[in-house]
Amino acid sequence: MTETTIVQYLFKRLHQLGIRSVHGVPGDYNLVALDNLQEAGLEWVGNCNELNAGYAADGYARIKGISALITTFGVGELSALAAVAGSYSERVPVVHIVGVPSTISQKQGALLHHTLGNGDFSVFANMSRSISQVVVHLTDPTIAAREIDRVLRACYVSTHPVYIALPTDMALQKIPSKGLETPINLSMPPNDPSIEADVLDSITEIIYSANNAAILVDACAIRHRVIDEVHDLINKSQLPAFATPMSKGAIDETNIRFGGIYIGDVSRPDVKKAVESADLIISIGALKSDFNSGGFTYHTNTKHTIEFQVDHIKIGYATYPGIGMKSVLQKLLGSLDFHRIRHTESAKSKPPRLVNQEAENSGGQEITHSWFWPHVGNWLQEKDVIITETGTANFGILETRFPKDVTAISQVLWGSIGYSVGACQGAALALKETDRSRRVILFTGDGAFQMTGNEVSTMIRHGLKPIIVVINNDGYTIERMIHGEGAVYNDIQPWKHTKILEMFGAKEGEYMSYAVKTRKEVDELFQKGNEFSKAERIQLVELFMPRLDAPRALKITGKMSEKLNAKMEDTKYA
Amino acid sequence: MTETTIVQYLFKRLHQLGIRSVHGVPGDYNLVALDNLQEAGLEWVGNCNELNAGYAADGYARIKGISALITTFGVGELSALAAVAGSYSERVPVVHIVGVPSTISQKQGALLHHTLGNGDFSVFANMSRSISQVVVHLTDPTIAAREIDRVLRACYVSTHPVYIALPTDMALQKIPSKGLETPINLSMPPNDPSIEADVLDSITEIIYSANNAAILVDACAIRHRVIDEVHDLINKSQLPAFATPMSKGAIDETNIRFGGIYIGDVSRPDVKKAVESADLIISIGALKSDFNSGGFTYHTNTKHTIEFQVDHIKIGYATYPGIGMKSVLQKLLGSLDFHRIRHTESAKSKPPRLVNQEAENSGGQEITHSWFWPHVGNWLQEKDVIITETGTANFGILETRFPKDVTAISQVLWGSIGYSVGACQGAALALKETDRSRRVILFTGDGAFQMTGNEVSTMIRHGLKPIIVVINNDGYTIERMIHGEGAVYNDIQPWKHTKILEMFGAKEGEYMSYAVKTRKEVDELFQKGNEFSKAERIQLVELFMPRLDAPRALKITGKMSEKLNAKMEDTKYA
Repeated sequence: MTETTIVQYLFKRLHQLGIRSVHGVPGDYNLVALDNLQEAGLEWVGNCNELNAGYAADGYARIKGISALITTFGVGELSALAAVAGSYSERVPVVHIVGVPSTISQKQGALLHHTLGNGDFSVFANMSRSISQVVVHLTDPTIAAREIDRVLRACYVSTHPVYIALPTDMALQKIPSKGLETPINLSMPPNDPSIEADVLDSITEIIYSANNAAILVDACAIRHRVIDEVHDLINKSQLPAFATPMSKGAIDETNIRFGGIYIGDVSRPDVKKAVESADLIISIGALKSDFNSGGFTYHTNTKHTIEFQVDHIKIGYATYPGIGMKSVLQKLLGSLDFHRIRHTESAKSKPPRLVNQEAENSGGQEITHSWFWPHVGNWLQEKDVIITETGTANFGILETRFPKDVTAISQVLWGSIGYSVGACQGAALALKETDRSRRVILFTGDGAFQMTGNEVSTMIRHGLKPIIVVINNDGYTIERMIHGEGAVYNDIQPWKHTKILEMFGAKEGEYMSYAVKTRKEVDELFQKGNEFSKAERIQLVELFMPRLDAPRALKITGKMSEKLNAKMEDTKYA
Repeated sequence: MTETTIVQYLFKRLHQLGIRSVHGVPGDYNLVALDNLQEAGLEWVGNCNELNAGYAADGYARIKGISALITTFGVGELSALAAVAGSYSERVPVVHIVGVPSTISQKQGALLHHTLGNGDFSVFANMSRSISQVVVHLTDPTIAAREIDRVLRACYVSTHPVYIALPTDMALQKIPSKGLETPINLSMPPNDPSIEADVLDSITEIIYSANNAAILVDACAIRHRVIDEVHDLINKSQLPAFATPMSKGAIDETNIRFGGIYIGDVSRPDVKKAVESADLIISIGALKSDFNSGGFTYHTNTKHTIEFQVDHIKIGYATYPGIGMKSVLQKLLGSLDFHRIRHTESAKSKPPRLVNQEAENSGGQEITHSWFWPHVGNWLQEKDVIITETGTANFGILETRFPKDVTAISQVLWGSIGYSVGACQGAALALKETDRSRRVILFTGDGAFQMTGNEVSTMIRHGLKPIIVVINNDGYTIERMIHGEGAVYNDIQPWKHTKILEMFGAKEGEYMSYAVKTRKEVDELFQKGNEFSKAERIQLVELFMPRLDAPRALKITGKMSEKLNAKMEDTKYA
């Protein structure tokens, strides 16, 4: 019988899932495990810290489908929790592997470094429980392979993080390697055929009887891997299709049936009208969080909605639990008679461009959000990967019309400021492995950049070549829009952003920094062609914008949030 | 009846406890609370990120006795967990205040940003439960004042962090202000008088009958505030006294009765002999973690040890639970007839200096640890505050003999790499408030600095003027000493450290950077006097040391750790 070790089994499984680079930070309880990466065909990233590593793993998973993160017991794993919780919230499959003290030390309750000093070795794994689909402790070689397969399947299928505790004395324990010959089963649980047939009949009938249906695609359509089916449905049905902030980029925005971004009352008026006047909403992968739904201001009617979700279908008020959308969508695409679907008036002859004519005509040289973001759309290229920070960029990008096959990465639900720099590193590394022709462009803010900017160092170390745009608007503008417009707590220390690449060790000729203060300078930069837009080096653009300017959607959402936060019940002390 | 608000009540209580600056990061669920800091006499720090803020709060508390940290729900609080867990492990009282969504949103289970998207609002507070002495949710104005007093007392008395959830709609709820007129009760729970009397009798008898007793002072003596009693005991008894890595600085090292640092088998031979040949160990505040005890190699005899702890006394094998050390030590100091205590031979006529003669004589110019750390001792001044990073610095500092009243800050038990930069910011700010004549000197490493170096920006922002020594030894040398001496995972991206102060926005003339590569350059720098040693500006010294050189104690401890990690039980798959 051929043998391998527990850690080799785990790492080879990660390789089989498509992972090639593993994010994380070394620590003495994971060092022996790290020795084993290379043999399994995996590269070590070595991030600046664990929070950054977690964000990077999230960004990598959004490109490659799944990712892995290795930290050390206590100090390391806890530093990554905000990132892992973000992956849980945003439904991104990340395998979090934690090197933990030996099973012997744990049994003895030894007073080791990186513990709370109370002999409790379960406390940190328990803290991860509510942000992990499955938690396993690889303490028993006789079941380790089975446990690894179970936890990795759970990660992929649930698209949630999982937690694997690997004790130092277990990493090199021998186990049979036979399991590696059979790929992990990644299929979705099957639908009950008779319920599914009934659901398909109902959906078909409703679609045929609608006069004015619209497709609304949301985040879970991306996360649960039905984007191909969605594109097929739009093209075959020719129904108008709308995205949300969280699914920005999921629909081809050059398709004449793409109608725009629906965000309830925060939508552009034409989009709001088009969605809310539909007599049937075909909703795919909805995730109606506050910032994704215009502060819960959808004016769509549940009675006239078919909702497709990963683990249930809802038709009007009726829920069909356990019926997953992927199989239903595929069968629907095979069975629908698309000639019987009535098209609406709103088909366009060519995709509209987004330009803010008013901002264009104002003639000033100040770089305002209303002017900038539509302009970005004209500079973007097919297949670009755009990462936006939770801040002005996340809202501004909604005003940018994407070329074909652009991927957008952001955190509209979790909204952890600082996420984007780490995510950019992960996404750029994933594309270095798979398609070096795709550009990676990060839009972040000066406040967010202070949190995780050190991760630019990791980008330089791995020869990644993103374009990093740091919007310098003198502090936390997103917070100013919610509360404390002029408050000192929304101020930050001013950094010399154009010195950063050099400081982090980028080599002469392998980097370029720009400071851009006028519209003319933006246009000149965007027109530089190979020297900027396609340059083979890492680039940082410091883009100066007014302190209190913000994208339209953020201004509205900020005020909604403040009101919601302040709303009091009528309580009073007795 | 005079009224105040919940948030004012809380902040005024913090002020009463001596807190003047509050660390943290703004987020929309805490902004209204932050509006209220100034009225209560508190300053906002505004850290670069929450992990740094947590480390800084820990450093601030080690100088001022207690500190406060404000984060926002989910994204913010989780980013701080590794730091708060560190404060729990190391027994540092930090009040963690989290701005959380309104009670109404929580009741509705609203799908808000910064949530997991599952309507569960308790999940993050629960994750903090095991690293908090008390968790309170300020959701009821009728009991808010009482809850605040209870949680703050628990923080101070237990010297552990506490967690306060403050919903957005509760911050400004009116409550009576009367409670503020009475200070919070911070007294220790009283000892049972008859048990205490019995304990005192036993201890007195044992001390009188010993021929060769030694005092061993450890971390919990500092944390639980019995250092004055310890000094009194040493001076009155004239017994030889020893510290540990975690209590470095707790004993006056210029006192002729100071014997050195005891670390079991890792001790210097003369120290080991002196402690282990004592016929009675008076142990005060012991915390025998692996790195604090030479990997559990104490050769002292429990039968001949009196152990003083915050909540119990141990005499030989007998434990007296509920008998706290502070009262016992005070009574002992009053009742002991110090003439009856037999002194040992080992009293010295003057305190020894620590110099490594062998290293001195080697004559090379390479800055080795064995040469450097004794030299530092000759450059230090009375009342300096020395912060050392978990890495070579934490072990190196054991070879440095301190002048009088030097305070040392480090994390020997929790050992989170990156801690020291944040802690330095917090300590420096605390001293800016209380004693501007004291210098703050940070010794960190290039690997650790990549994790949290952005916090230097906060130091600049607040006009703090520490001397920051970054030991550049090309990666994680502490990990190399444990495992993977030449492994790629212990490498890092090389930074241009001397550019950092400028990049973070320090103004011309208000900062200075140095790169130091030879012993001669170290000596020249240390001799610069007012231009360096007492300069009124922030300074960064990049100190180049050999990649694989390490302090003696780290070399031994590293190998012990590797062995412990690898130790396997005899398991094999079935």
